[in-house]
Amino acid sequence: MKHIDFSNVAITGGFWKKRQDLSRKTTVKAVFDRFTDTGRFAGLNCDWKEGKPNAPHVFWDSDVAKWLEGAIYTNRQKPNASLEKKINKTIDTFLKNQTPEGYFNSHFQTQEQDRRFTDMDKHELYCAGHWMEAAVAHFEATGDRRFLEGLSRYTDYIIDRFVVKKDTGFDVPGHEEIELALLRMYDVTGDEKYLNLSLHFLNERGINPRGLQHAQGLHPERTWITAPYCQNHLPVREQKVAVGHAVRAVYLYTAMADAAAKTGDQGLKDACEALFRDITEKKMFISGTIGSSSQGEAFTVDYDLCNLLAYSETCASIGLIYFAQKMLAMDPDSRYSDVIERSLYNSVLTSTSLDGKAFFYENPQETVPYLHTRDSGKSAIKWPKMQRQEVFNCSCCPPNIVRLIPSLGNYIASLDGDTVYLHQYMNGTVDLGNGKVLKIDTKYPENGKITLTVTGGDATLKARVPGWCVNHGYETVKGYTTLNLKDGRAVTLNFPMKVRFLEARPDAIFNCGRCAVQYGPVLYCAEEMDNGKNLRDLTLVARSRWVKGIHPELKVPTLTGRAFRRVFAEGELYRERGGAVEETKVTLIPYYAFSNRQANEMLLWFQVK
Amino acid sequence: MKHIDFSNVAITGGFWKKRQDLSRKTTVKAVFDRFTDTGRFAGLNCDWKEGKPNAPHVFWDSDVAKWLEGAIYTNRQKPNASLEKKINKTIDTFLKNQTPEGYFNSHFQTQEQDRRFTDMDKHELYCAGHWMEAAVAHFEATGDRRFLEGLSRYTDYIIDRFVVKKDTGFDVPGHEEIELALLRMYDVTGDEKYLNLSLHFLNERGINPRGLQHAQGLHPERTWITAPYCQNHLPVREQKVAVGHAVRAVYLYTAMADAAAKTGDQGLKDACEALFRDITEKKMFISGTIGSSSQGEAFTVDYDLCNLLAYSETCASIGLIYFAQKMLAMDPDSRYSDVIERSLYNSVLTSTSLDGKAFFYENPQETVPYLHTRDSGKSAIKWPKMQRQEVFNCSCCPPNIVRLIPSLGNYIASLDGDTVYLHQYMNGTVDLGNGKVLKIDTKYPENGKITLTVTGGDATLKARVPGWCVNHGYETVKGYTTLNLKDGRAVTLNFPMKVRFLEARPDAIFNCGRCAVQYGPVLYCAEEMDNGKNLRDLTLVARSRWVKGIHPELKVPTLTGRAFRRVFAEGELYRERGGAVEETKVTLIPYYAFSNRQANEMLLWFQVK
Repeated sequence: MKHIDFSNVAITGGFWKKRQDLSRKTTVKAVFDRFTDTGRFAGLNCDWKEGKPNAPHVFWDSDVAKWLEGAIYTNRQKPNASLEKKINKTIDTFLKNQTPEGYFNSHFQTQEQDRRFTDMDKHELYCAGHWMEAAVAHFEATGDRRFLEGLSRYTDYIIDRFVVKKDTGFDVPGHEEIELALLRMYDVTGDEKYLNLSLHFLNERGINPRGLQHAQGLHPERTWITAPYCQNHLPVREQKVAVGHAVRAVYLYTAMADAAAKTGDQGLKDACEALFRDITEKKMFISGTIGSSSQGEAFTVDYDLCNLLAYSETCASIGLIYFAQKMLAMDPDSRYSDVIERSLYNSVLTSTSLDGKAFFYENPQETVPYLHTRDSGKSAIKWPKMQRQEVFNCSCCPPNIVRLIPSLGNYIASLDGDTVYLHQYMNGTVDLGNGKVLKIDTKYPENGKITLTVTGGDATLKARVPGWCVNHGYETVKGYTTLNLKDGRAVTLNFPMKVRFLEARPDAIFNCGRCAVQYGPVLYCAEEMDNGKNLRDLTLVARSRWVKGIHPELKVPTLTGRAFRRVFAEGELYRERGGAVEETKVTLIPYYAFSNRQANEMLLWFQVK
Repeated sequence: MKHIDFSNVAITGGFWKKRQDLSRKTTVKAVFDRFTDTGRFAGLNCDWKEGKPNAPHVFWDSDVAKWLEGAIYTNRQKPNASLEKKINKTIDTFLKNQTPEGYFNSHFQTQEQDRRFTDMDKHELYCAGHWMEAAVAHFEATGDRRFLEGLSRYTDYIIDRFVVKKDTGFDVPGHEEIELALLRMYDVTGDEKYLNLSLHFLNERGINPRGLQHAQGLHPERTWITAPYCQNHLPVREQKVAVGHAVRAVYLYTAMADAAAKTGDQGLKDACEALFRDITEKKMFISGTIGSSSQGEAFTVDYDLCNLLAYSETCASIGLIYFAQKMLAMDPDSRYSDVIERSLYNSVLTSTSLDGKAFFYENPQETVPYLHTRDSGKSAIKWPKMQRQEVFNCSCCPPNIVRLIPSLGNYIASLDGDTVYLHQYMNGTVDLGNGKVLKIDTKYPENGKITLTVTGGDATLKARVPGWCVNHGYETVKGYTTLNLKDGRAVTLNFPMKVRFLEARPDAIFNCGRCAVQYGPVLYCAEEMDNGKNLRDLTLVARSRWVKGIHPELKVPTLTGRAFRRVFAEGELYRERGGAVEETKVTLIPYYAFSNRQANEMLLWFQVK
């Protein structure tokens, strides 16, 4: 399928327009300011000296590059002189400080001048990849090739070191990313050196333990650096089970899927299909987040979906969206676009505060404040933080949001020959080419009505029937229904929304006896501030009338219904089953809106009767 | 009330006789052997030298002293020449190596000769207390005063240092124990120096932070050493909330309650009542275990009863039994004797393997093996061990079991004037004095029928109606029913047992929506080996016919009934509520018998419909 780029899409109103506006007006600047405060932009000057503050960290370049990519997208949507100045200054600083060989890394150029490409755990190729993505964005936005050419020189240098001379301390990136970035460079330039380098890194992975062993020797204290941790345990075509650092994993799988699409490599495609199934059938929280453990920020064993321990890094959800998008391009199956929707509404949205300024790095699937205070000391459990922060030492997630939100148009539609695939429902227009425009008019996710109009000619549309919609009347093939649209004549899709109660398979033991509540694509949760303490004790009455409303303080939708809670006498710790209960009202809010007041109890999985 | 000592009680058959036989035949020797292997007995010679293995640890003396106390009880029940030799050798070694001043501590005499009583965190007074308890046991068993006099000299030395000279580095024990031991010395000698020293330590507690600050300075890395950790945060009469290290806490409260009984100190008694309520109404797992957190082996916040994280040290349950016993002596209320029963059947029993050789230190309230493998690394969560061990570095729990089991007769009955209080139902005889003997004939806890016969005269009996028995016809005052027994005429109590489903108050959030299963005083659990994986998914049918049986392999009682489990299609991670379920049979075993085959899933709290 042919990707319809977000530059051909305008989100002109409704739910996501508000989010894009918030990102443009607030988030881009908020992240810029925090990165400025912490010296990340100044670091690009590569003039840090021993004794000065803010020594550039190994992954700082990637933070800035992702912000830059997002800023370029944002500026492209609605040009802003001040933002453009920041963009240009950042690019100029990069180009000015790029070495004659084409290398750039603010950490190595200031602190490890002689140790380029010696240490697999030091994120150089990861940072290079993010600069490439920013360069692609800049070239696409402006047509200016300067930045792209800077990254072309960098690519040549990488080829010289890793492919020609092979004089590096490792053979493949420790933190994957450049593999997918090179494929984007290939997309815009058509230059096969990018494709070939990406394939080189993919094909070398899991073959030679040399680089990993070297890194382990350099950092014996980093006990988490293992072959599975960085997906270096098997050749990529033999990888069928998602392992290790979740962000690295999905970045790799994204590149594998894109390479499979570009080369027709069936072995790669098969591996990707197995990996996608493994993740979404065994390792995905209902919010579309992945990577259960904070230890190595990693995938763990099957069905390890303990809400209280969920690490669920924001970047991993975003990577899952990328991966699903590449799979969708090969195979128009709503399994992929449903996962994108799930992550967008319940993970990407959740990761950012309603004011657009603060972020979850790890995304809690339940919060119980007392656990954070029950004990202290060195071995006390590190529960996921209950509130969003403006910046992190490792601040990869905020700029990933900065680049995803303005480029959401990427996920709406694609073309298979003349057939238009419609994946996500956002209010706006899609330029289909040849003078045809698709207009999408919807209040989604408030309700499931979507009015579609094509102008400039007729069109065959295949529209995703969302996986959450169980009471529709559409015939589907792989989750898509066919519509024949006549020029100018509106057709309305209707995906009836109702309050749904979802259960997880028994292997996900922490959810046994409990249901998640979903309305349309949006998960709902309860917070203590609206419902009192001990949310786990609430038993929701499925058949009660669930009333939609607006939260007076948060201004987000609410679902209000009946529930029961048990009433115990004072001093009564245990009692016979079947004692006093009282009826109560329960007010649910979208999961994405939780923790926007203060740290308090939050629950996604309820008893339901 | 006057305590009826276990020397006046014979457990002659039934449930506990088997346990006492197992302890005598196996456990006493097993613990002796492990303590010998690890050098604990050799350490008493106080001849360890730098470079030799097995340097005596600060708490080793207490391990040996508790074993010694238990061995004396065991030998008293049924004399055994080999055991008596070990007992005498241990006592002789203690006496031989006691210093001229009366001091004994195998750690300090070999490794910190000049630092006696300088460090509040080094367990000297704790060890001294356990030697005192052993000496009391020996004197009561043999009438031989040698050992008792050795401890009298030690007491004089402690008085000289802590009360007269006040030249020590701290004012009160860091690990309480000696307070209750001194009161036992007072019981057998009548010498007020013991009472006064115990009261001195109680009254000094929480007054002066000097010793604690000094210990903190000596061990800055022991971040857990805080005033609440060792109950040094408040004067004892102001302590109303149980805090800190749970074993230390309940040993202290035991001494406070005994001191209150001996002195009539209402302030102490009030504090004890508040503390007992606080523990049993807010901080006690349904198994009668306490101390929720491994961090500091400590009490945490109210209702922190997360089964998976439960630390629940065996010694803390035993200490709770001691505390309850002292409260019961002041106030014949079944609140106290019910807690003793709960801990005996569900914690003390559980802590020991069915073969009598291995022990739980921390007692899991649920086991989920995959959690132990989900991640690794320095910050990985330390879940409670799933299997019993024969010995621990800090092996306080096994010898505590060694002394409790043979002295179980202590908990059966007491006298209030002529009235006999009957607290625990064990098959045997109680010498009531004046030629009267109470015979107890019962299969308890197999059923609730207890036949009582007094010979040698009539007797008024007040018998505990167990808290678990909700369908009896007895009139009770504070949980006890009055029986007038005629000489030689049997009376049968009948406490009907049924399968009960118990729920915990909503604040104990991890049990919301779940019930524990109890039959008589015994909690039942499910193990994966009998019921398959994902035990949390089982929904027990309360009204199904629950059939009693015997486990073919474990030879313990079983309860078999109906349950449902959900059936998911392969690859289905989430689904609409109300999908396929299948009926299944569930086999429950007593919680005390779990983990006697291999580490596997174990569940105490079930969904029930």
